[in-house]
Amino acid sequence: MSTSRREFLKKATAAAVAPALGALVPPASNIPALAQESSYPANKMSAVLPGVVSEITLHTPHVVKEIAPGKPFQIWSFEGSAPGPILHVKEGEPVHFTMINDGGMPHSIDFHAAQLPWDKYYQSIAPGETHSFDWVPNFPGAFMYHCGTPPVYVHLGNGMHGAIIVQPKNGWPEPAREYVLVQSEWYLTAEPDANGVYYGDPAKILQVVPDFVVFNGYSNQYQEEPLVADPGELIRIHIVNSGPTLWSAFHVIGALFEATYADGNPANWQTGMQTVTIPPGGGYTVTLRIPDEGYYPFVTHSFAYTGLGALGLIKVGNPPDLGTAVAH
Amino acid sequence: MSTSRREFLKKATAAAVAPALGALVPPASNIPALAQESSYPANKMSAVLPGVVSEITLHTPHVVKEIAPGKPFQIWSFEGSAPGPILHVKEGEPVHFTMINDGGMPHSIDFHAAQLPWDKYYQSIAPGETHSFDWVPNFPGAFMYHCGTPPVYVHLGNGMHGAIIVQPKNGWPEPAREYVLVQSEWYLTAEPDANGVYYGDPAKILQVVPDFVVFNGYSNQYQEEPLVADPGELIRIHIVNSGPTLWSAFHVIGALFEATYADGNPANWQTGMQTVTIPPGGGYTVTLRIPDEGYYPFVTHSFAYTGLGALGLIKVGNPPDLGTAVAH
Amino acid sequence: MSTSRREFLKKATAAAVAPALGALVPPASNIPALAQESSYPANKMSAVLPGVVSEITLHTPHVVKEIAPGKPFQIWSFEGSAPGPILHVKEGEPVHFTMINDGGMPHSIDFHAAQLPWDKYYQSIAPGETHSFDWVPNFPGAFMYHCGTPPVYVHLGNGMHGAIIVQPKNGWPEPAREYVLVQSEWYLTAEPDANGVYYGDPAKILQVVPDFVVFNGYSNQYQEEPLVADPGELIRIHIVNSGPTLWSAFHVIGALFEATYADGNPANWQTGMQTVTIPPGGGYTVTLRIPDEGYYPFVTHSFAYTGLGALGLIKVGNPPDLGTAVAH
Repeated sequence: MSTSRREFLKKATAAAVAPALGALVPPASNIPALAQESSYPANKMSAVLPGVVSEITLHTPHVVKEIAPGKPFQIWSFEGSAPGPILHVKEGEPVHFTMINDGGMPHSIDFHAAQLPWDKYYQSIAPGETHSFDWVPNFPGAFMYHCGTPPVYVHLGNGMHGAIIVQPKNGWPEPAREYVLVQSEWYLTAEPDANGVYYGDPAKILQVVPDFVVFNGYSNQYQEEPLVADPGELIRIHIVNSGPTLWSAFHVIGALFEATYADGNPANWQTGMQTVTIPPGGGYTVTLRIPDEGYYPFVTHSFAYTGLGALGLIKVGNPPDLGTAVAH
Repeated sequence: MSTSRREFLKKATAAAVAPALGALVPPASNIPALAQESSYPANKMSAVLPGVVSEITLHTPHVVKEIAPGKPFQIWSFEGSAPGPILHVKEGEPVHFTMINDGGMPHSIDFHAAQLPWDKYYQSIAPGETHSFDWVPNFPGAFMYHCGTPPVYVHLGNGMHGAIIVQPKNGWPEPAREYVLVQSEWYLTAEPDANGVYYGDPAKILQVVPDFVVFNGYSNQYQEEPLVADPGELIRIHIVNSGPTLWSAFHVIGALFEATYADGNPANWQTGMQTVTIPPGGGYTVTLRIPDEGYYPFVTHSFAYTGLGALGLIKVGNPPDLGTAVAH
Repeated sequence: MSTSRREFLKKATAAAVAPALGALVPPASNIPALAQESSYPANKMSAVLPGVVSEITLHTPHVVKEIAPGKPFQIWSFEGSAPGPILHVKEGEPVHFTMINDGGMPHSIDFHAAQLPWDKYYQSIAPGETHSFDWVPNFPGAFMYHCGTPPVYVHLGNGMHGAIIVQPKNGWPEPAREYVLVQSEWYLTAEPDANGVYYGDPAKILQVVPDFVVFNGYSNQYQEEPLVADPGELIRIHIVNSGPTLWSAFHVIGALFEATYADGNPANWQTGMQTVTIPPGGGYTVTLRIPDEGYYPFVTHSFAYTGLGALGLIKVGNPPDLGTAVAH
């Protein structure tokens, strides 16, 4: 175990035993005080499912962004964020894909939604090169896409992954408010460089000692800006677990899943689930309908990791500000 | 890795390589000799599914009980045991719930079987306070309940969790002998205090190095007092995995599951399973019918953890005493 | 963490960050240069599903075989390999089983496909003894078999496990090219003995720090000798996860599963899956139909472990040699 991990754990432990009186999430009004943001932009993104497209272009810039308050990180990205953009295509409709490698090292693409020979389409291209092909998504679902350039776990750990949602040919039976969440782990070097920037630590990936476990790239980002829904409204969440290594035990506190679909395929229906097991490299689509106004946290229920950034909120209706609600 | 864990592993390894001739479980008659019980009561409980109730009251005393032979542990409990009492309610029938915090620190409740706003019903109450509300279980199944007071992993790790079984509205199609098992991990401080009492070790929870992995709170308790069934009788086991962190690979040696139901919902039927994956924070209901008299061990088949206390027995019919049976 | 594991990780990390330009697998022509094979035979086996039998005899010799290039290992085996032979029987048809212990220590059998009292049929027999019984496989599927002699995790870790496939009574609806893959972990002593032979390291099993994670016993064996199929042909793969401890996130790069069956039971159908979660002690049957010629790697997508040997290839049709294909 690296020294940094030991120190991390020591701090986490100290934090863990002290504030037994605190709230599960700090009151919204206090969050700015906790954050020590640097001058780098935050690696945050909307979780809203975007519209369907038939053309996808992905650049691969290496960028520095904060992945948690005060933690700027050298990201190997698709389109400047990690995860890369949420992609939304339609079952049976051809997709024209272009990748432009402006990352300074070889990169590649692997669409879990596609049926394509790895040796032909998923090979690395050199910096400056462009790679283009057409493909047809034949299975609906919530799929991972990622860079498959070796060592794969390093490219994954540095951020080159995302979600591609394939809408069923005939759509879902019922319209819903749709969100996309990508769970992933961050493993940081023990110390930042002279500019305060952290890098991916391959040894820590192999030791499976993550510093952060997050939804859509940034620690706890949906505490300040919750997903929203109306009471009784159908909510459909597509979750992709990018790993690189851990399973997700996806759960929404205070709610139950009306329907769950393994890998997002409408045929893989189950109901009344409290928690779904999502493998690294896998996905799930869940629906829920929350009757009552209020806040509903979503987490991975594997609790050694939940506190590392894997807690967001769904805000249903217009409940009172959390600041007062928590201090009841 | 803490020193205690190293020592634990060293001892475990020594134990592991030496007794290749021993039985999977020691003969029943030898068990007392192995146990070095203290003067504290054992944290044991019946696995039998109790009758349906419509009123639930949970106190939260902190108690010292043995969680394994010679290991008294300071438990943060519901009703004096960890897991707390097995709760059994009925789909669609209102439940009146009261929590009385006599634990000396804030605690709270989170029913995975309920649909309730977290900010309103699942917040911490101070010592001496009472918290009461009505709710309706709308989904049948095998659900977890727990204290959700932060740091949640500490409250879980110290024992504040249990199973709430929601009987389907129209019951199960066939009567069965019904049991409830809660799998969970214990993480102990390296040394006991002056009274010989161990405490939960938050750092070890975060490092995922459990000292014990158990069913219903006490290491290997169902070796001495097996679950029982008749040959050919339908057995229905509701399993809840309280974690805090590990998945369960629930398996019965010598048997196959006739039916399995993810999270205990009758609609989530599968058949002929050898092992089910149960996430932390999740559940499963399984049925089995064992044709032949004998002993059938149940385990988590994730074998680095099985030997930490996650092995019980189902005794079918009236087989000869294990003491002789094993030494065949 | 043991010194050897630290060194292993250090080397793995060095290897990981350096060759970002390399291919996911080395070109076929270079593989001999990487391998430093000893004079011991390789622990390799065909993945082809053999014909159905009604008699099974298993000897338990302890043998030394290479489990990776330059890594001879003292295997506790069934029939001289680890995993043991792929067994194929038929639902409802009696099986006559004989075990002959020529291993020099007690061993036993546990068929996950059978319904048999553990205290009667799965007990250890001494070296030189023979154990024989008849049983009927009542559930179709992809099951594990293993030695259940305590300490079980040591017998598993040393190689005493395998797959037994139970063909459904009426067969599968469609003929297919059928393969069997057993995923398992190897944990090696830090140093080999005077003859260069490694042994199982019980402490590392308990710490869950595998040195290799492999399919059918040998690191990356199906890179040099891929599974083969024709374009569009139905492929059926039975996967058993022998652990001892880790879950598998089984995935084929460039392909999707047309159908998946938890524990190999035809009733447990799902479709359009990218990745399946297979518990230790569990199995899965998946089918896929790959339209285009090319190479399709199969992996566990839990990427801290993929690079430890858990990557094989399916070669579809007659694609160009990988050596040129990769360097496009």
